[in-house]
Amino acid sequence: MNITAQQARLLVEAAESKAAEIGAPVNIAVLDAGGHLKAFSRMDGAVLGAIDIALGKAKTAALFEITSESIWDFCKPGGPAEGLQSTNGGLVTFGGGIPLKTRDGQMSGAIGISGGTVSQDFEIAKKALDAFVS
Amino acid sequence: MNITAQQARLLVEAAESKAAEIGAPVNIAVLDAGGHLKAFSRMDGAVLGAIDIALGKAKTAALFEITSESIWDFCKPGGPAEGLQSTNGGLVTFGGGIPLKTRDGQMSGAIGISGGTVSQDFEIAKKALDAFVS
Amino acid sequence: MNITAQQARLLVEAAESKAAEIGAPVNIAVLDAGGHLKAFSRMDGAVLGAIDIALGKAKTAALFEITSESIWDFCKPGGPAEGLQSTNGGLVTFGGGIPLKTRDGQMSGAIGISGGTVSQDFEIAKKALDAFVS
Amino acid sequence: MNITAQQARLLVEAAESKAAEIGAPVNIAVLDAGGHLKAFSRMDGAVLGAIDIALGKAKTAALFEITSESIWDFCKPGGPAEGLQSTNGGLVTFGGGIPLKTRDGQMSGAIGISGGTVSQDFEIAKKALDAFVS
Repeated sequence: MNITAQQARLLVEAAESKAAEIGAPVNIAVLDAGGHLKAFSRMDGAVLGAIDIALGKAKTAALFEITSESIWDFCKPGGPAEGLQSTNGGLVTFGGGIPLKTRDGQMSGAIGISGGTVSQDFEIAKKALDAFVS
Repeated sequence: MNITAQQARLLVEAAESKAAEIGAPVNIAVLDAGGHLKAFSRMDGAVLGAIDIALGKAKTAALFEITSESIWDFCKPGGPAEGLQSTNGGLVTFGGGIPLKTRDGQMSGAIGISGGTVSQDFEIAKKALDAFVS
Repeated sequence: MNITAQQARLLVEAAESKAAEIGAPVNIAVLDAGGHLKAFSRMDGAVLGAIDIALGKAKTAALFEITSESIWDFCKPGGPAEGLQSTNGGLVTFGGGIPLKTRDGQMSGAIGISGGTVSQDFEIAKKALDAFVS
Repeated sequence: MNITAQQARLLVEAAESKAAEIGAPVNIAVLDAGGHLKAFSRMDGAVLGAIDIALGKAKTAALFEITSESIWDFCKPGGPAEGLQSTNGGLVTFGGGIPLKTRDGQMSGAIGISGGTVSQDFEIAKKALDAFVS
């Protein structure tokens, strides 16, 4: 089942709360299972270039149903699918994009975070995910 | 001065509240003065095609510093600038996009609403604007 | 012969001077005979949406070696080339784009002005042209 | 606060002066804090391919608020964000793009230089920056 507006709001709030706690202003993008924009928030201080990256991480996670960094295993030099990252209008293959699934494993959407370091972005996305599944 | 995350949140909430009141689920796009995405929310029930329209209305209002429907006077058949709507990657020239200005008239951003009838979209955008300036 | 940097500078200055005189802040785009950007200036107060239009007017004049509004005769409803305006990545078919030619009629480049009314833009482009040919 | 036309003109003139001094004709792109074109100049003799690079360097610096070459640390092979250079419609990750900030650290715009060697481009951008902050 597709993510609801209420769930998207909770995800954004959880991400913003974690981001504020660690002092990393970020962009938060929430897409539905079809990869369409559901909610977005750019915190004050997040660089403009991270808007597109947050959207790209979420798109990557939504389209492939795995985390954005997992795609890297396929398209890295010597990987089985070099160039994969250029498909679908461009994928983002580092951490911060996570698919959202229901308890029974159905795709519900994806979240993408960008604005901090890659590990901060990943940490924030992970924390938001906790708000989603609990 | 560019719109803040707090102001964007109030705009989204005011728009969602008005939209719920009149029974018209919509997409709400808030951009900064440079036309960059600041906040977005798609209410449950809003059609997918209205995502791009909400973003386009807000972009049009941000880039030209007037309401989206005002652009139509320029580019309508027989108007002084036919084809204007094809510039800037495509403009949206009907109601629902409104520029956000500070009390002293400086551009701060823009809001775009789409999902209801054009008059509903306009009404919701107008109501949200009240939340911004008050 | 292609326009020189010195000529481009004089064009921009003449346009800015006329624009200031009539109180219409504009964008000024100068392209060479190949349609490549040579000089650009956005005056304070010109709307962001007019950047793309100034560039588009100049491109249209450079590619077809006539004024931007002359293209409209071809592509207007009922004209001999409806849809022409969608070619070349999009043309701008209202006033403000003028080709730059040497005394012996060779293409040298084009200028595009946008930010005022269409007649103001045209007037400014025309004035700049005087600086070029004299 | 966004860069003014007067500041942009001084930046272009300082860059052109330095470029002439070292004999490296370049393209100079100046963007505002939102990444929108404010001023541009192509010196006689600069290759056409460097137009897009100057614009790209400035865009990269504007969107990420750091020098263009700093982005390379993130997206180089083995870096934490491989593929980052493909976001935002393509970034330029070598020297010559520098963000412009006010004395109190607020983003004001960015400059991008291309046409010489990378070290020449960087040197010219740096020299122009001196004109901006002094």
